[in-house]
Amino acid sequence: MDHAGRLKRLQSALAEKRLDALLITSLANIRYLCGFTGSAAALVVSRDSSYFFTDGRYAQQAREEVQGAKIKVRRKAVLVATGEWLALAKRPGLKRVGTEGDHLSLSDGSRLKKMLGPGIRLRQAPPLVERQRMVKDPEEIARLRRAVLLGASLFDIALDTIRPGVPEVKVAAEMEYAARRAGAEGMAFETIVAAGERSALPHGRASNAAIPARGFVVCDFGVILAGYCSDMTRTVFVGRPSVYDRDVYQAVREAQNAAVEAVRPGRGVGEVDRAARNVLKKKGLARYFTHSTGHGVGLEIHESPRVATGQSEILCPGMVITIEPGAYLQGRGGVRIEDVVVVTERGCEVLTPTPKELLTI
Amino acid sequence: MDHAGRLKRLQSALAEKRLDALLITSLANIRYLCGFTGSAAALVVSRDSSYFFTDGRYAQQAREEVQGAKIKVRRKAVLVATGEWLALAKRPGLKRVGTEGDHLSLSDGSRLKKMLGPGIRLRQAPPLVERQRMVKDPEEIARLRRAVLLGASLFDIALDTIRPGVPEVKVAAEMEYAARRAGAEGMAFETIVAAGERSALPHGRASNAAIPARGFVVCDFGVILAGYCSDMTRTVFVGRPSVYDRDVYQAVREAQNAAVEAVRPGRGVGEVDRAARNVLKKKGLARYFTHSTGHGVGLEIHESPRVATGQSEILCPGMVITIEPGAYLQGRGGVRIEDVVVVTERGCEVLTPTPKELLTI
Repeated sequence: MDHAGRLKRLQSALAEKRLDALLITSLANIRYLCGFTGSAAALVVSRDSSYFFTDGRYAQQAREEVQGAKIKVRRKAVLVATGEWLALAKRPGLKRVGTEGDHLSLSDGSRLKKMLGPGIRLRQAPPLVERQRMVKDPEEIARLRRAVLLGASLFDIALDTIRPGVPEVKVAAEMEYAARRAGAEGMAFETIVAAGERSALPHGRASNAAIPARGFVVCDFGVILAGYCSDMTRTVFVGRPSVYDRDVYQAVREAQNAAVEAVRPGRGVGEVDRAARNVLKKKGLARYFTHSTGHGVGLEIHESPRVATGQSEILCPGMVITIEPGAYLQGRGGVRIEDVVVVTERGCEVLTPTPKELLTI
Repeated sequence: MDHAGRLKRLQSALAEKRLDALLITSLANIRYLCGFTGSAAALVVSRDSSYFFTDGRYAQQAREEVQGAKIKVRRKAVLVATGEWLALAKRPGLKRVGTEGDHLSLSDGSRLKKMLGPGIRLRQAPPLVERQRMVKDPEEIARLRRAVLLGASLFDIALDTIRPGVPEVKVAAEMEYAARRAGAEGMAFETIVAAGERSALPHGRASNAAIPARGFVVCDFGVILAGYCSDMTRTVFVGRPSVYDRDVYQAVREAQNAAVEAVRPGRGVGEVDRAARNVLKKKGLARYFTHSTGHGVGLEIHESPRVATGQSEILCPGMVITIEPGAYLQGRGGVRIEDVVVVTERGCEVLTPTPKELLTI
């Protein structure tokens, strides 16, 4: 990964924002910038150097992983160590330090302010690293592609396991086991297997409930492979779907297609969201689509941009987003269909290889 | 679970702290107080009522799970919905609202302040709910006991799988699969299987590295069962340990015993930490013990109290903590032994049933 280039781009952004340095406390942002994968770290990026802080547990791992930053291992809480270092540093050039407002708690913010005293001014910086991360570089897209393909292979396991009477968690267990055996670090989020009436829960984590003899089964799952997340949803039907069930499925499928077709550079994410919503409106299902159409995906399962009503982000080549409209009819069941797509120079490429016809079991 | 009692105790604490209400943004705290298990929520507890906020995805789940609070489902970001409601509420009795400083970001804090205007004063409250959660009630201890027993059963799987040449992740995959089949919602943290020189990494997540023909293997793992986390570590030796290896193991074992024996009501957590550290000091290994001795465990894998140098918490009956000293010798290997113990009226009970003799494979 091009850590040097990423740090350099961030350093240019610092100058634009008139910050002398940025204190980075998001672990995903730290990983993006310098490669560290552990669970306790802070990174200070000034206009000409970077300093990485961790605690004793990660001394060896930091030496193996961290690139482009000087490593400081301290036997105390990372933020305290970083604050003390900043307070001592007090170099002429280090007076305005940006913080990641989304990744620093009010308590830590107050603590830090007290430690630094009046010599250093802390400023909530805009999400500079998140903005960089929105556009993936070719190496990241290659990793996302591999994660999406591994994720998609789990759907075959689901199809082999979903049967009336089988507990939802059994399906999830088989999928997760296959993911691990294939080299995934873990799942990107809690696996959703929601059958029958539970399929109307947009976030129906696999439960001990048995799959009923008839109804939709929503499967929403993702792996983490080499640090990158996959995310996909397919909905199958156990037993014989009614005409209405087929219509609902078909409407969601058309909505998903319409949104995918709306993805191209220069388009606003709001238009993509509207494309899905308009199809469902025509079918009288808009009020059953209770969440946004998608989200960025990368080192984290939910990244910028949000593909939702009221969002103004413009799509650019290299952005990787999910497209996942759904319809949830309480007491009856729900449908969601989700792919990962990458914005290309002329439109988009759907990374998820899995067909979208309604499968019955 | 006694949600009503928990809410009532929090309401008494509000009066003591002269707060009219507390805005709760920690999902674990929300689950503790009202039972909701989803991923988007806020809870406002005033002196006489509680209001629960979530978004459209969780409408049905909220109705099924939430106890003791009025449910408000809004089609917008939860914190925005909560802020708007608070701003509109502006009842005479709702002027000083506490926030959870550890669970509200600087950005959300600023946003909220702007929404509320000068009529409502926000105050960073002490960790009131975390303090309540430190002492587990009998139903929680019963759940923790079940989680610990399920967790411990996975060690047998590890023993069956650990062999020279087997990748560490294969061991983790088998353990995690067994956990899921036994009903766990998932793992409480990324499974650590660190073999050979990697065992000197205190947080050596299972990697693709093959287990070498000779050396320690640290296995640190936990499940989530009915919402509660288990946490245990055992270290085995593949091949024939040298006298020095045995000595290191024995020293950590004695340190762990000493710390467990130091656990009793009225003792400070610092004393428990010191008990472990003193044993390792006598053996010349203190500088290889680079982390704290333990932590509380419950709905979250890391809870209060921290069992560490410089901490002043006093142990009380019902607290559940881990005891997990270790020694990490870079280039050679590491050892950690960890149990979960519950503080009783007269001392403590070790919940982890697994023997601690050095096993060789």
